[in-house]
Amino acid sequence: MAATLTALLHGPDQPGLVARVAGWIYERGGNILHADQHRDPHAVTFFQRVEWQPVLATSGQPAAGVKVSPALVRRAGERIDLFLPVPATSEEAAADFSAFAQSLGMQVTVVCSVARPRMAVFVSKADHCFHDLALRWKAGEFSADIVAVVSNHRDLAGVAEAYGLRFVHIPVTAENKATAEVKQLELLQEVQADLVVLARYMQVLSAEFLRKGGRPVINIHHSFLPAFAGGRPYHQAHTRGVKLIGATAHYATADLDEGPIIHQDVVRVTHRHDVDDLVRKGRDLEKMVLAQAVRWHLEGRVLVYGNKTVVFD
Amino acid sequence: MAATLTALLHGPDQPGLVARVAGWIYERGGNILHADQHRDPHAVTFFQRVEWQPVLATSGQPAAGVKVSPALVRRAGERIDLFLPVPATSEEAAADFSAFAQSLGMQVTVVCSVARPRMAVFVSKADHCFHDLALRWKAGEFSADIVAVVSNHRDLAGVAEAYGLRFVHIPVTAENKATAEVKQLELLQEVQADLVVLARYMQVLSAEFLRKGGRPVINIHHSFLPAFAGGRPYHQAHTRGVKLIGATAHYATADLDEGPIIHQDVVRVTHRHDVDDLVRKGRDLEKMVLAQAVRWHLEGRVLVYGNKTVVFD
Amino acid sequence: MAATLTALLHGPDQPGLVARVAGWIYERGGNILHADQHRDPHAVTFFQRVEWQPVLATSGQPAAGVKVSPALVRRAGERIDLFLPVPATSEEAAADFSAFAQSLGMQVTVVCSVARPRMAVFVSKADHCFHDLALRWKAGEFSADIVAVVSNHRDLAGVAEAYGLRFVHIPVTAENKATAEVKQLELLQEVQADLVVLARYMQVLSAEFLRKGGRPVINIHHSFLPAFAGGRPYHQAHTRGVKLIGATAHYATADLDEGPIIHQDVVRVTHRHDVDDLVRKGRDLEKMVLAQAVRWHLEGRVLVYGNKTVVFD
Amino acid sequence: MAATLTALLHGPDQPGLVARVAGWIYERGGNILHADQHRDPHAVTFFQRVEWQPVLATSGQPAAGVKVSPALVRRAGERIDLFLPVPATSEEAAADFSAFAQSLGMQVTVVCSVARPRMAVFVSKADHCFHDLALRWKAGEFSADIVAVVSNHRDLAGVAEAYGLRFVHIPVTAENKATAEVKQLELLQEVQADLVVLARYMQVLSAEFLRKGGRPVINIHHSFLPAFAGGRPYHQAHTRGVKLIGATAHYATADLDEGPIIHQDVVRVTHRHDVDDLVRKGRDLEKMVLAQAVRWHLEGRVLVYGNKTVVFD
Repeated sequence: MAATLTALLHGPDQPGLVARVAGWIYERGGNILHADQHRDPHAVTFFQRVEWQPVLATSGQPAAGVKVSPALVRRAGERIDLFLPVPATSEEAAADFSAFAQSLGMQVTVVCSVARPRMAVFVSKADHCFHDLALRWKAGEFSADIVAVVSNHRDLAGVAEAYGLRFVHIPVTAENKATAEVKQLELLQEVQADLVVLARYMQVLSAEFLRKGGRPVINIHHSFLPAFAGGRPYHQAHTRGVKLIGATAHYATADLDEGPIIHQDVVRVTHRHDVDDLVRKGRDLEKMVLAQAVRWHLEGRVLVYGNKTVVFD
Repeated sequence: MAATLTALLHGPDQPGLVARVAGWIYERGGNILHADQHRDPHAVTFFQRVEWQPVLATSGQPAAGVKVSPALVRRAGERIDLFLPVPATSEEAAADFSAFAQSLGMQVTVVCSVARPRMAVFVSKADHCFHDLALRWKAGEFSADIVAVVSNHRDLAGVAEAYGLRFVHIPVTAENKATAEVKQLELLQEVQADLVVLARYMQVLSAEFLRKGGRPVINIHHSFLPAFAGGRPYHQAHTRGVKLIGATAHYATADLDEGPIIHQDVVRVTHRHDVDDLVRKGRDLEKMVLAQAVRWHLEGRVLVYGNKTVVFD
Repeated sequence: MAATLTALLHGPDQPGLVARVAGWIYERGGNILHADQHRDPHAVTFFQRVEWQPVLATSGQPAAGVKVSPALVRRAGERIDLFLPVPATSEEAAADFSAFAQSLGMQVTVVCSVARPRMAVFVSKADHCFHDLALRWKAGEFSADIVAVVSNHRDLAGVAEAYGLRFVHIPVTAENKATAEVKQLELLQEVQADLVVLARYMQVLSAEFLRKGGRPVINIHHSFLPAFAGGRPYHQAHTRGVKLIGATAHYATADLDEGPIIHQDVVRVTHRHDVDDLVRKGRDLEKMVLAQAVRWHLEGRVLVYGNKTVVFD
Repeated sequence: MAATLTALLHGPDQPGLVARVAGWIYERGGNILHADQHRDPHAVTFFQRVEWQPVLATSGQPAAGVKVSPALVRRAGERIDLFLPVPATSEEAAADFSAFAQSLGMQVTVVCSVARPRMAVFVSKADHCFHDLALRWKAGEFSADIVAVVSNHRDLAGVAEAYGLRFVHIPVTAENKATAEVKQLELLQEVQADLVVLARYMQVLSAEFLRKGGRPVINIHHSFLPAFAGGRPYHQAHTRGVKLIGATAHYATADLDEGPIIHQDVVRVTHRHDVDDLVRKGRDLEKMVLAQAVRWHLEGRVLVYGNKTVVFD
């Protein structure tokens, strides 16, 4: 399978963006595999996810350049031959595209299919989301590597290592929180993590951590209709007699549980379910919703703007 | 089809309740069609819905009494014949059962299948829930009559009358609200309404109205994860980028939108849906959720206790 | 709101299709509002839905032509000014695009937002899908007109006329079926129907009718896991103890109930539901699934190829 | 937690069954925790699940008997003291109830909460359902033991043993199938399995095996709307363009995939999903549906009659 590039771009809408992006890729011999656009008419913002196979100057290919398609350059009776330079690597091709997109006023990220993202998974004591992520990773459902399992407790050290994963214990207390976060950041730096997944990590990350971390952090939390403030939400939901319980996966921001939503789902409950049943059903929901959010993120399908997302599913 | 009685009872749990209720019915020759129990182990409360065909002293039946089943009264070698008085009507049978249930410390309501409940439907300008209820009523999906359509606007007068329904216009303003509620209560009294359904009636009913009304009031409202305070909730949900929108049907209480929940459902939305799509999808959801809640109520399946419900579906 | 064109195209995949389509629109001054592509890697087929606002030679606009964007025609130091002719009407613009798409080897349909499709609704005796479609039409949920209600029975004449719709009774018997279909086709011709919706029309349309009709026909039918052959499917489903019942909306083809699927949904049932409950729940499902399929069709979101669909939702 | 008994009974309906069952338990001092009844009006059959805490003649309790409640034996002015013998163990109490239920013409099974059912899990090469069951078992979600993992392949030997489970390899070929089934039956006998779960075991069990096995066998299989005969069903579903894929858990019978359905669910798919996506989504569905079916079975909630089930959820 040839390497592909996937770009997520967004910025002020203007006529011709679809044509210019597709034309730029086509002129360079690229083959668009998927392209999905969206316009927010209120924000007058353009969003695009485009995945293509670029032409690279690898051995056996003409290094001289890519001939611009005659379909795009026409004048009555005249033939125009234009040659564009060919990038040597996917990274170079990605950089070329980024520069082009920025020249259109777009914010852009480009990821290469052969670059496997590196995930750090943060856990506490609950293991359901961790096992789910680890088994999907082993089954090849994620095009990514799990490079570290970080926890404030030792409980999951054994199971992490049974999956062949590196487990790092960084205790967190009210007193040492700032120091612990420094250690966490150093570890993320060391393992070159591209993504942090909070798999029921029961600690709030500071705004400082999120800012310095500079990496997306995906969190999962329960959600209820109506919402409940305070502790023991499943008990509150049971007391309130809700008929649905939900889970929401979102990017962590300084505002706890208020970051851009990636995915949500619910499951039906009745008076026959006690608190333990709600907790158990909540676990299944959390696993499924978190895994879907992580997959979409890894496939470059989630574009964040303001406090919301466009998910090109 | 013979008349049946359906009782909803709840109260402090104690051993033998199932046996005593079933025994009481059986001793009087009644035939239990459905019985569903629930125990809340935390509240130590017993809940039951039981539906049965009572023996009535109608012509052609022995008026003398019902012989107590020998299966329940046994002593070695001895035959005990007990006769219990037979009620003349369903109402009398219901009253007998209520007295019995109260003697067990239970709160109880008993409804008779031949007594068609009388519904008053409150509407404003939006017609989707109203049409849905009216069409289901015409299709025979509800064992009930719609005895009045009450509105603070005249918009739905024509469609109500096209269904052959009585339409009553009671304008409501900030100034006349108390007076308007008096008129509404007088109307409910006049039409002998057993149930009020708020089918997108966009006015808040006062605690006074609910207390004096003395009838259950079912309301439908949108619900979101997370919840949004303030006006224009669909706009807020769109701005927040939620992936699910929901609707909740509940009994109205003095605490707006905080009454016991009867039914909830959600529908998936994406960034491709604008506010109008959310509103449209919300309409479908509101129709379905409200109709289900009304049906369950009419079938005597909803038992309220504290601020929650047991729905014997 | 300015008129937009929506094109659905598909055909053999080839590099540059996205660029060429977008470029063609952009060169003519068109503004793409939505564009969604799909590739079937197995069939090596390209699919696209693209919606744009074309430039038309209406009064107040320069009739001379649209200047080709300089971004698309570049040569070092040289400025090329190209002018393309401007279509006078949406129909002309649609025809231009169709010719262009066909030159790329694509099959294409183009619809104009201001051309309201004309629907004929076929019914028998059941009224639930009919009321649902009619109410959505009245509520403005469909950008379409209902130009005739056709039935083999007179039952729904009154309700159709109450909605202000033309009702045409064409009796169908085993003997007169061919003649009846001729009458139906004549009526479709007379009312210039663009679409036929079978809203629980309980007659099988002949292959002849479908071929001669030359219009898409959308049908709704129940569907079960597993499937049941023969009559009284809800009874069979109940006997089999299925836990889900479903409905499928599809384009009618000569193979009964085997045409391209547009939409499907299911609802949960339990042993507590008798056959009547299944039928009632099936009605709700049929309404929702049919309405969604009709909406998607009317919005030009459904592309048929082979025996399946691509739904650009 | 005191031991409870759970009885599932069904048989010809007759008046007084609820009273007689509840009365029998109450007379013996038992405390009913849950009781759920169902009547099939067509089959005139009565179904009940009842769970209660029996009084046992353990040390510290009067061994003489349980005094019959005076509420059940009344005669004006007379006091009747009846004493019933008290069973020594749960097994004895269960046997007493079974004899009583049979005297009412009922088929009955009684399970005791302290008797942990013993599950044998059959697998082939696919591991998703196996991991899911094993992790739920480790998490304490099942009140049961996994006593053997049986496979026709060696692939899952390592993971089974990593969970501390006994793995038994019994190769199956077209030639040795009968012999292999004898070995499987001997193993089930040896490990005293109460239940066999086919967790994507890709072999058809013979009618002979099922008959001789004498234990319930739960199977999971994909299910589609419409259904597809023949191999590679996900490919067929993709070719057909279905919009939903499903999974069905059922008791295995001699009729392959036609046994009584315990649970079903579906998930939505679109044209954007290729066959691999369908297979992946199918895996998640299979896991969830199988686990729910196994849980319901273990909790004594599934009553089989004819070719269908009553699930007291």
